[in-house]
Amino acid sequence: MKRMRIGIIGHQFMGRAHSNAWLQAPRFFDLDIEPVLQIACGRRLLPLKEFAENWGWKEIETDWRRVVDRDDIDIIDIAAPQYLHHEIAVAALKAGKHVFLEKPMAMTVEQAQEMEATALISGKVHYLNHNYRRCPAVRLAKNMIDEGKIGRIFHWRGAYLQDWLTDPEFPLTWQLEKEKAGSGAQADLNSHSIDLARYLVGEISQVTGMTAQFVSERPLPNKNAAAFKGGSSGEGMGKVTVEDASFMTVRFVNGALGSFEASRFAVGRKNYNLFEIYGSKGSVSFNLERMNELQYYNNDDQYGEKGFRTILATDPSHDYITNWWPPGHIIGYEHEFVHAMVDFLGAISKGQEIHPNFTDGVREMEILEAGLRSAEEGRMIELETL
Amino acid sequence: MKRMRIGIIGHQFMGRAHSNAWLQAPRFFDLDIEPVLQIACGRRLLPLKEFAENWGWKEIETDWRRVVDRDDIDIIDIAAPQYLHHEIAVAALKAGKHVFLEKPMAMTVEQAQEMEATALISGKVHYLNHNYRRCPAVRLAKNMIDEGKIGRIFHWRGAYLQDWLTDPEFPLTWQLEKEKAGSGAQADLNSHSIDLARYLVGEISQVTGMTAQFVSERPLPNKNAAAFKGGSSGEGMGKVTVEDASFMTVRFVNGALGSFEASRFAVGRKNYNLFEIYGSKGSVSFNLERMNELQYYNNDDQYGEKGFRTILATDPSHDYITNWWPPGHIIGYEHEFVHAMVDFLGAISKGQEIHPNFTDGVREMEILEAGLRSAEEGRMIELETL
Amino acid sequence: MKRMRIGIIGHQFMGRAHSNAWLQAPRFFDLDIEPVLQIACGRRLLPLKEFAENWGWKEIETDWRRVVDRDDIDIIDIAAPQYLHHEIAVAALKAGKHVFLEKPMAMTVEQAQEMEATALISGKVHYLNHNYRRCPAVRLAKNMIDEGKIGRIFHWRGAYLQDWLTDPEFPLTWQLEKEKAGSGAQADLNSHSIDLARYLVGEISQVTGMTAQFVSERPLPNKNAAAFKGGSSGEGMGKVTVEDASFMTVRFVNGALGSFEASRFAVGRKNYNLFEIYGSKGSVSFNLERMNELQYYNNDDQYGEKGFRTILATDPSHDYITNWWPPGHIIGYEHEFVHAMVDFLGAISKGQEIHPNFTDGVREMEILEAGLRSAEEGRMIELETL
Amino acid sequence: MKRMRIGIIGHQFMGRAHSNAWLQAPRFFDLDIEPVLQIACGRRLLPLKEFAENWGWKEIETDWRRVVDRDDIDIIDIAAPQYLHHEIAVAALKAGKHVFLEKPMAMTVEQAQEMEATALISGKVHYLNHNYRRCPAVRLAKNMIDEGKIGRIFHWRGAYLQDWLTDPEFPLTWQLEKEKAGSGAQADLNSHSIDLARYLVGEISQVTGMTAQFVSERPLPNKNAAAFKGGSSGEGMGKVTVEDASFMTVRFVNGALGSFEASRFAVGRKNYNLFEIYGSKGSVSFNLERMNELQYYNNDDQYGEKGFRTILATDPSHDYITNWWPPGHIIGYEHEFVHAMVDFLGAISKGQEIHPNFTDGVREMEILEAGLRSAEEGRMIELETL
Repeated sequence: MKRMRIGIIGHQFMGRAHSNAWLQAPRFFDLDIEPVLQIACGRRLLPLKEFAENWGWKEIETDWRRVVDRDDIDIIDIAAPQYLHHEIAVAALKAGKHVFLEKPMAMTVEQAQEMEATALISGKVHYLNHNYRRCPAVRLAKNMIDEGKIGRIFHWRGAYLQDWLTDPEFPLTWQLEKEKAGSGAQADLNSHSIDLARYLVGEISQVTGMTAQFVSERPLPNKNAAAFKGGSSGEGMGKVTVEDASFMTVRFVNGALGSFEASRFAVGRKNYNLFEIYGSKGSVSFNLERMNELQYYNNDDQYGEKGFRTILATDPSHDYITNWWPPGHIIGYEHEFVHAMVDFLGAISKGQEIHPNFTDGVREMEILEAGLRSAEEGRMIELETL
Repeated sequence: MKRMRIGIIGHQFMGRAHSNAWLQAPRFFDLDIEPVLQIACGRRLLPLKEFAENWGWKEIETDWRRVVDRDDIDIIDIAAPQYLHHEIAVAALKAGKHVFLEKPMAMTVEQAQEMEATALISGKVHYLNHNYRRCPAVRLAKNMIDEGKIGRIFHWRGAYLQDWLTDPEFPLTWQLEKEKAGSGAQADLNSHSIDLARYLVGEISQVTGMTAQFVSERPLPNKNAAAFKGGSSGEGMGKVTVEDASFMTVRFVNGALGSFEASRFAVGRKNYNLFEIYGSKGSVSFNLERMNELQYYNNDDQYGEKGFRTILATDPSHDYITNWWPPGHIIGYEHEFVHAMVDFLGAISKGQEIHPNFTDGVREMEILEAGLRSAEEGRMIELETL
Repeated sequence: MKRMRIGIIGHQFMGRAHSNAWLQAPRFFDLDIEPVLQIACGRRLLPLKEFAENWGWKEIETDWRRVVDRDDIDIIDIAAPQYLHHEIAVAALKAGKHVFLEKPMAMTVEQAQEMEATALISGKVHYLNHNYRRCPAVRLAKNMIDEGKIGRIFHWRGAYLQDWLTDPEFPLTWQLEKEKAGSGAQADLNSHSIDLARYLVGEISQVTGMTAQFVSERPLPNKNAAAFKGGSSGEGMGKVTVEDASFMTVRFVNGALGSFEASRFAVGRKNYNLFEIYGSKGSVSFNLERMNELQYYNNDDQYGEKGFRTILATDPSHDYITNWWPPGHIIGYEHEFVHAMVDFLGAISKGQEIHPNFTDGVREMEILEAGLRSAEEGRMIELETL
Repeated sequence: MKRMRIGIIGHQFMGRAHSNAWLQAPRFFDLDIEPVLQIACGRRLLPLKEFAENWGWKEIETDWRRVVDRDDIDIIDIAAPQYLHHEIAVAALKAGKHVFLEKPMAMTVEQAQEMEATALISGKVHYLNHNYRRCPAVRLAKNMIDEGKIGRIFHWRGAYLQDWLTDPEFPLTWQLEKEKAGSGAQADLNSHSIDLARYLVGEISQVTGMTAQFVSERPLPNKNAAAFKGGSSGEGMGKVTVEDASFMTVRFVNGALGSFEASRFAVGRKNYNLFEIYGSKGSVSFNLERMNELQYYNNDDQYGEKGFRTILATDPSHDYITNWWPPGHIIGYEHEFVHAMVDFLGAISKGQEIHPNFTDGVREMEILEAGLRSAEEGRMIELETL
């Protein structure tokens, strides 16, 4: 079996999720390429070392350029904050590496376009990791849509609701700084929903947006703390420079009318990534907090016996599932990353594309920007579509 | 006990719902005023007669003006299509009658304003029947908000989804003609949601809208058929002149960011009037298809034990419920009409206002119009607020 | 239209529910017989008078024998406590009246058998009111079973859970006295479940039971209070002489294995009358707290797309529903009583049987008694079946 | 860090689940003992070799006695069918190994007792793997019960429903042979429920059971196929010698009344391991198909605002969760095995007991046997309790 060496940039939350997935993929799936966890890169040496030991990365490095420049590395896995995505990805592609990039794509459409152009020229596999595409229940929805079971689509209703910013004492982490995060709920949450909408419904032609910021100043974070969306507060206050919530109404090229509602102030919702798709022949609905289930209404069921049914997507017929456990034994959050690794390596092996890739990422960035611009200018934005 | 004579205009679906409610109100509630079902008015004599006999209306009349002009009538109950609301309501108020008006208010903001002005001058009780305000579970949400249990409100998410227009062979009933219905999903469905949002969250200051029409021509209806949102088709085709779906994003005066999504093309949803309200201290959610339940998340519950709870609003502490059945014995759609009659008669008896009234109706009409204008002009509309 | 005069015995909770249903039936349904609310009977004159006035009963009477003896009365509606059922029913049938009897049937199998024999001899219509049979969602389950959609039935899982006795200070009302109530959860709750099981699955051949009593002494009730399952406490304590919970495992004649779990100590359940039926071709599940819904799993759905679907039983195809409101507009607890009155009058008019009748009641009583005897003797009881 | 060598017996479904867990445990949790995947044992060499390579077992062996006899092995992980449990476990304990034993315990109470005695004499850690005890939502229920939040427990309602035997063409796998499986739904499914009931509610004193067999003959399996609960059919038919469903009613020592309902013929249920616990202060409910959630009803919530709440057990306060992902990111089936390995190694390290152990297994076996004996003899069985 062919082996490929991976260099990972970043060792926080996403570094962990990716490392686990690289390890689990070959244990549960038949792969043509064996992933080798070669080198892990981060700026803080001590935690980096612990990270590498725990996950079995053979080497460590504090300068990502030295990783990208190494000839023996085949794949660059970018699990760093988004303000670094553009620079690392472009360098990696130019160095002839396949690139596995964690979402969101980049800070601006311009960055994304340059990344895409570099990727297309490189001929390498480029992948933007919106992991939810590879959830079996979402894949089931996709397959049903492709088979015509939903018919003509009338509506997309997407929401991604969390509540971790509700407490005004929550510190001003990097996710709340425009310079580092690009935007707030839009980049973090609506990016996921847009990817799913494009995957399941199609391209978007018109965007209207409205945003809100509920807490404008927050305690500065304790610089010594490093936690996912958390950490303790330090001294002083700082200005929040991103939106707390972003709502959009859109028209799809196929005529469907859609909505996107992202917020970090939806008290009681932890990771409530919900979508509903209504079509002429049926409807589907998904909620990430119950990610093994798909709700499906078949309009062709006998009259008087129709209803939304809860499909537990753990049957052998469901994508990826035979590699895990028997029916009724659910999988969790990290399994979608494993699926992403499997498909990414498969694409390299077969010399094929994988989606979402950097071209998808450009479209996504255009929609995200259009939503924010619409909110700012108080008018509907038309997107160019082919 | 004081008795008051009612004249009802209209004997279709709403005529039935109102008649039943006038009869049930005194049987289940202690009233200061006894409602007398005096006279029923409609244009088609035969069905009108059957209607009156069934529900115990003592007299019938085919010209609503003659009902309004009668000295012995105290209350005019307007259950006729909305294009008649303005004319009848103004005449009834000028004739010194209390007016119970079925929603939606009117065809235009101008009509609504004239109705409101006439009502204010008349000194009579004017009521616009958005029955869902009087659902015990909705009332529970209201009480909790008023008691501060939800705290500062961040979001309103409203949807009113039905699917009765999905079949392109469904005939061109009056609900699909702009002249008779004013608008489509906006007037019919979003009007309800707007009333609930104003009731529960507050006034709206900015509106952005987008609409869609999925079927532009439909079979002309069989003129002999008369059914709720139905009837068989006749010959020929006609143009649909209203929108099939209307989505809005709004900003409330209190800063909350909200959404409204109304559609008659949401396959699988029959009467799915959903709202979610997210606040700093808690959140609530309601779905009319399970109208005896309120979902409530209490952010002050012990950490690790928080969750959305399903409150079955059939306890004696819930408004209206002690007059019905013991805990766990649910009520249905028509009970909300009974509650409306009870409160309307109570307002007359006590010389008080009741809400929503014609002033509320004007605000609602302004928002509905703003949504449609925003969709047409592709820009956000600012509403004047006091 | 033929008119029939009704005499009702009892004016508490069930008197109210029945009176309302007699009034609503002719307003919403086409009947061949017009029910006339002639005379109401109870022992306490003052509340009886109020009751009669409220519901339009023309006359009142404090001795039920005088009601039964009147020649002009066609129907005796027995809404009195169960310890009176036998005597009143037998007398009414002997006097040539049709009998509408509220559940449970009687205090003993012997009583029930005598009631049945008298009924069969009388040639009159006899009906035992297990109202839940006439819930549209339950009726849908029945129709599906009869059409073979569930196939061979493997399991019945029934539970009827309430929590109104959890508080040890709840007074010793008549429902807790064996002399008046016959038994506790068994007579009150399992009687409903057994009726549904016999209706939907079939006859029972083997019964195993176990019961529990959690609070053995309670405050004596305040004699002046009269409320449904409530009232305040008086002085002193008394012994609870019925079981608080009764669980049974049964075998049906058709081989299905079933369970019944009734309790008044299931904290959080108000009127949780649940059943699940599992068959070779499909399964159904119903919960009274969401009585407009039926859960249905169709084993013939396409593999990978199967799931329990929530059918909202408010379509025109569902029994009784066209007489009420449009799809998605739910009905409540009391509507089932209206359906019972409609079917009861229909049976009289057509000279047909109606079910459940007193023959059903005898079978039900046998099962209830077998369950209690099994619990007492610690052994499985075989029931005679034809 | 101390290292301990593991020998695993069995490489089917459970061999996979255990291997994965041994690998994941040290990556996600801080352990005092490093588990070394030393040797894997099975009877068929080829699949065993593949298994060992995939999961990193260093050596393979076809005779389990040679594994048990090796001095360098510290832990024996028994993932073989239950008819081998007794012999292997006793030998392993006598050889001074710690034993991690997959459920169910053994074929008979006698076997279980001997295993327990050997374990107690050995002084080694003995663990019976009922993985569901280590699901964070179940652990939350346990913690709440221990803290008194549920109060006095009145009821346990347990069900474990699957449907994989519904098809009469499903072959006669070893699970359907009494000699190999001990019993059917009782050993396989009720064993899990009994373990949870003992963990959460307490000891059981009285048992009543009833069982059913719906298909008595099945096609003999294709001997070449080896799949979890599946495989294709070979030639000829064979007799099913275990029950398809087993229902029990029980009394707990603390007075609670409980039920157990296990079936492999519950069409539509895949892995529906449900329990409900009702107590004086609150109630909880759990369903394995939504294993990240716990339903909780707090009877001390404000009157009128009570309801079952859905707790998503993914907060840092929930056991094991901080080692995985942030709130709202759910875990899956195999994670509970990881937790079991973590706690098992922790018990060895600290020289403590872990539960369920072989003593728990004896109690469980006694209840399982009592249920089957009760069903056979048609009488209630009293269990000896201390």
